[in-house]
Amino acid sequence: MRATVIHGERDVRLEEVPDPELSTGGDAIVKVVAACVCGSDLWPYRGVTPTASPSRIGHEFIGIVESVGPDVVTIKPGDFVIAPFYDCDMTCANCLNGVSPSCLHGGWWGRDDRLGGFADGAQGERVRVPHADGSLVATPGQPADDLIPSLLTLADVMGTGHHAAVSAGVTVGSTVVVVGDGAVGLCAVLAAKRLGASRIVAMSRHAARQEVAREFGATDIVEERGADGIARIKELFDGIGPDCVLECVGTTESMDQALRSVRPGGTVGYVGVPSGGAELPIGFMFGNNIGANGGVAPVRNYIDELLPEVLSGAINPGRVFDLELPLAEVAEAYAAMDERRAIKVLLRP
Amino acid sequence: MRATVIHGERDVRLEEVPDPELSTGGDAIVKVVAACVCGSDLWPYRGVTPTASPSRIGHEFIGIVESVGPDVVTIKPGDFVIAPFYDCDMTCANCLNGVSPSCLHGGWWGRDDRLGGFADGAQGERVRVPHADGSLVATPGQPADDLIPSLLTLADVMGTGHHAAVSAGVTVGSTVVVVGDGAVGLCAVLAAKRLGASRIVAMSRHAARQEVAREFGATDIVEERGADGIARIKELFDGIGPDCVLECVGTTESMDQALRSVRPGGTVGYVGVPSGGAELPIGFMFGNNIGANGGVAPVRNYIDELLPEVLSGAINPGRVFDLELPLAEVAEAYAAMDERRAIKVLLRP
Repeated sequence: MRATVIHGERDVRLEEVPDPELSTGGDAIVKVVAACVCGSDLWPYRGVTPTASPSRIGHEFIGIVESVGPDVVTIKPGDFVIAPFYDCDMTCANCLNGVSPSCLHGGWWGRDDRLGGFADGAQGERVRVPHADGSLVATPGQPADDLIPSLLTLADVMGTGHHAAVSAGVTVGSTVVVVGDGAVGLCAVLAAKRLGASRIVAMSRHAARQEVAREFGATDIVEERGADGIARIKELFDGIGPDCVLECVGTTESMDQALRSVRPGGTVGYVGVPSGGAELPIGFMFGNNIGANGGVAPVRNYIDELLPEVLSGAINPGRVFDLELPLAEVAEAYAAMDERRAIKVLLRP
Repeated sequence: MRATVIHGERDVRLEEVPDPELSTGGDAIVKVVAACVCGSDLWPYRGVTPTASPSRIGHEFIGIVESVGPDVVTIKPGDFVIAPFYDCDMTCANCLNGVSPSCLHGGWWGRDDRLGGFADGAQGERVRVPHADGSLVATPGQPADDLIPSLLTLADVMGTGHHAAVSAGVTVGSTVVVVGDGAVGLCAVLAAKRLGASRIVAMSRHAARQEVAREFGATDIVEERGADGIARIKELFDGIGPDCVLECVGTTESMDQALRSVRPGGTVGYVGVPSGGAELPIGFMFGNNIGANGGVAPVRNYIDELLPEVLSGAINPGRVFDLELPLAEVAEAYAAMDERRAIKVLLRP
């Protein structure tokens, strides 16, 4: 089959690789219907994290089950399934606590660190899923094609934006600021709106992203950053700041923006993969009672709650995809994301 | 009047100082009935934080109102009152949000950084309270003498232990570990029990403190620290750790103990004044979805909830006082706390 392999900085290629095979008894082979490029895929693409040797890449996919191992109970060949951006069994103590990325038996796509050896990356034609009954969620019947983008967001960005909002404690009437206008930040706006936030500020200086943010429920846009951005946010919220800030980038600057914008006693929900090197300033947080909650989003746990709203059309997070390409053009997909020509690119094998 | 003045390392003296006078219109003069020494008073006492010039000290007191300014509405001369460990107006946006230590107009005892100039420290005979209607809570009538210790804990340690538990999200059925066996840590055990925790581990290697912890609701005691302590805690909770850890010390080691003991997806509620110099490890927290919430406890906001239970005898946090001395022996009070001969010392002017 064909799958995406990253060789180094700005060098991703679609290559011929071995077909995956059932191996653990509990696994499934899924034929990918749609995959995409994640903001975090840009770290190795840009060389920020080094690529020691050529490796598979991509962690978001939806598809149709082709075959299952003898121990698989709920998932069947022919099912249309959503996979979270990691593998998990949904039976261990951490999964049952709602923290499936910390599954005691799970792992990550494109690696060989789990039961049954290597599992494929998502930007390819097929993926072996080790814990099929745990990781995969089947839709009721085959979804209409126009639902594909929104269903694909449940693999990562919509669940991750939702995690930012849940971690920050967004509830009915909350005032919210979202730092980051990538797909996750935009989904965080939608998640905050869905949870009942009364006012939602999107921090963005990009017209197309501002437009999506407004469609998703943003009531205000702030273009300033750094000290000017903090001053503008404080001014919008009684001089003290909002109840919740959703940090959806992961740099030192964006986390600083988040921590210094929220009001005393407020909470930063953070889902941007930490990439800046700075730790959290405990003295500042202690003095102002600012909480920090978040991490690797348990999107598998969230699918049960979010899927019905995607299927009914109540939410349309797939709006974050503004470019669709065939898998053969995966290199162009990365370039478009890297150069911010696209918010998020959907790939069809 | 007489009040405690710290001159430097291990040098506290009771000295003659000017009587406080009403000055702002909204203030009150309170005759101190009982004060005490806080674990955080030991930082300047031990020279960990330097004392540049002689200064008043002490921030926990209860007493009887002697006089009030013309703008004071609810507090009256003769009222028996509890003061939080800071001054606050309870009308600003932060106070109304439940974060009274961040009062936009408040300040700290023993300093001159607030409306109307210098406000006295608590380890003395009288204290001027700038925002009397905000800061002070009057009891219904004069309390019985045996309630004095528990009422005094509402000025700081009981409210602070409660804040650790609330910040960690302790609720009915939570599993809890408390790091720190000082008065705050012991009160955190009581707070967790009161909030319905199903299992509470006190980390202590001191027999007298273990006994109080058990009386307050601890179900288990762990004496090990560091890596051994973490291993023992993990072992007690399904190999993954408890839902909540209450950090009541503030050193780098104790915060590390807390963060690495809690389960993935769990929360550290922290109230120990950060004194170790290390920031919070965002990568570890992100990877394991560990939240950190807490800070300077809004004990004024908590008095309304906790006072009725103290008055009814439902909770007896005053049990943390195991030594009572006249104010004249304040130097011995510090020495007893410093040498861990006493958990907490009550002072009577």
